[in-house]
Amino acid sequence: MSLKDWLIPQDKHFFDLFEQQAEVLKQAADHLYCMIENFDDIKNMCHKMKTYEHAGDDITHSLYQLLNKSFITPIEPEEISRLATGMDDVIDAIDDTSRKMFFYDIGTTDKYMLESAKLIRLQAESLEQAVLGIRDMKNPKKISDHCIEINRLENLADDVLAVALQDLFKTNDAIRIVKFKDIYETLEFTTDRCEDVANVLGDIAIKHT
Amino acid sequence: MSLKDWLIPQDKHFFDLFEQQAEVLKQAADHLYCMIENFDDIKNMCHKMKTYEHAGDDITHSLYQLLNKSFITPIEPEEISRLATGMDDVIDAIDDTSRKMFFYDIGTTDKYMLESAKLIRLQAESLEQAVLGIRDMKNPKKISDHCIEINRLENLADDVLAVALQDLFKTNDAIRIVKFKDIYETLEFTTDRCEDVANVLGDIAIKHT
Amino acid sequence: MSLKDWLIPQDKHFFDLFEQQAEVLKQAADHLYCMIENFDDIKNMCHKMKTYEHAGDDITHSLYQLLNKSFITPIEPEEISRLATGMDDVIDAIDDTSRKMFFYDIGTTDKYMLESAKLIRLQAESLEQAVLGIRDMKNPKKISDHCIEINRLENLADDVLAVALQDLFKTNDAIRIVKFKDIYETLEFTTDRCEDVANVLGDIAIKHT
Repeated sequence: MSLKDWLIPQDKHFFDLFEQQAEVLKQAADHLYCMIENFDDIKNMCHKMKTYEHAGDDITHSLYQLLNKSFITPIEPEEISRLATGMDDVIDAIDDTSRKMFFYDIGTTDKYMLESAKLIRLQAESLEQAVLGIRDMKNPKKISDHCIEINRLENLADDVLAVALQDLFKTNDAIRIVKFKDIYETLEFTTDRCEDVANVLGDIAIKHT
Repeated sequence: MSLKDWLIPQDKHFFDLFEQQAEVLKQAADHLYCMIENFDDIKNMCHKMKTYEHAGDDITHSLYQLLNKSFITPIEPEEISRLATGMDDVIDAIDDTSRKMFFYDIGTTDKYMLESAKLIRLQAESLEQAVLGIRDMKNPKKISDHCIEINRLENLADDVLAVALQDLFKTNDAIRIVKFKDIYETLEFTTDRCEDVANVLGDIAIKHT
Repeated sequence: MSLKDWLIPQDKHFFDLFEQQAEVLKQAADHLYCMIENFDDIKNMCHKMKTYEHAGDDITHSLYQLLNKSFITPIEPEEISRLATGMDDVIDAIDDTSRKMFFYDIGTTDKYMLESAKLIRLQAESLEQAVLGIRDMKNPKKISDHCIEINRLENLADDVLAVALQDLFKTNDAIRIVKFKDIYETLEFTTDRCEDVANVLGDIAIKHT
């Protein structure tokens, strides 16, 4: 058994875990969109979201264990750590929105939440494509393009938040303002965390250009 | 004088400082619990908390100075930095809750705040035990167990926050909602910061398993 | 052409970009102070702030591209990354305050906002001086002094926030409380981000003492 044969399975395992994490992230983003679109049976929907959050935790934990036991890694240890933590932060932020919609007993969602969730779902799709690209690194340009798209979607989410808040403050219902402001901001915060992941992926891609 | 003799005192100094920082963190957590339990003479209690916050700052500063002047460190420089900053962030978060209880003039505390502060105090105890363990590294398994316990307590704090917010939003007092929500969230944020420290300690332990 | 000649222009480029970023940061801080002082034509003032934010993004992006393509860097890659991200975070935080003042339609600013913006402007000036100092590193003591000053200003901002919140909660206008609390906190958050940058600059200076 050559040194190379011994190393490759290790590498493969890193990319397998990253792809699993990106898949869980996309499922969580899809589920969030469904929750906001239908806004029905929120307690169970919120409970199901928690299963994605736990799945994400488990994968992050496995990535750290693998990292701490590996002498040689396919990408920089620092980047593995940033990528694992970054994707976990996105999933946590999605779960936060889900829990807040339930706890705050908001009664109804609105077009701003749906629009934000749509942007998060699009980011999650680009993010998965970018993660798939780092395994063989045959097309770093394509990875960079996905990252640019994720940044573009984040800017759109800023605009959605701006209009949502301007609209919200037209009402005089302070409690509604507190609840909706928090949910809008958590949605926008989620798109920021996606951008963080895109920045890590962009850094990895640029080194292979 | 052998190289080893020359190195040991330096190492000893790092661990001395970390143990001092963990001790200050525990004192701050104890003080927060007392503040919430008795909720009396808040101005002075808040002032005393500030002394812990300053003590923590001084130790963090000393750790960074020692790190920047050391050629050889007992654990990775990156881990020293993360551990020092992490413990400082916990102490800052505890001080934030203390200050908010004073500034917001909340009049009374409640069972959710007390329960959260209890969880923080338990985390601080586990954290100190884990920090004591990294000096000789004779029992990495015990360090990991403390870290798992800190994570478990953080999950409980999430649940306390959930119930607290659900309960809070039953009232129609918007100003009370703003104040209490902020304090509940700062308490929960504190348990997240403890978890960050546990993750650093867990990383250190796993390398010595 | 000697190796040294080949390296110097690269180094120069890093410092050029850092100085440009510090300059944009100072312009943004000045603009924020003017917005709060005059509080007129907010939509256009907010729009102009966005141009600083975009300029900051472009410089950060250039720094990362340069970093990812450089084999040898004048300061540690980790420090370049922390410094670039840190200054970008300050500019983003300044822009956040600007946008919130516009979106929340607050009607008027107050002495606490002006005082906080003044502290941010002073921090930005010290920060620029410290950044100018890292190019030749002839006077690390002077860099450290600027960093200590930035920390001192951050402590003052904490006190401004404390008094501002105590004052704010005397009113019974919940919506005003939500809006002003958020703006006060974003201003104080900005001074924290300046302190983060000062800590990076202080680390760089201490290594050359």
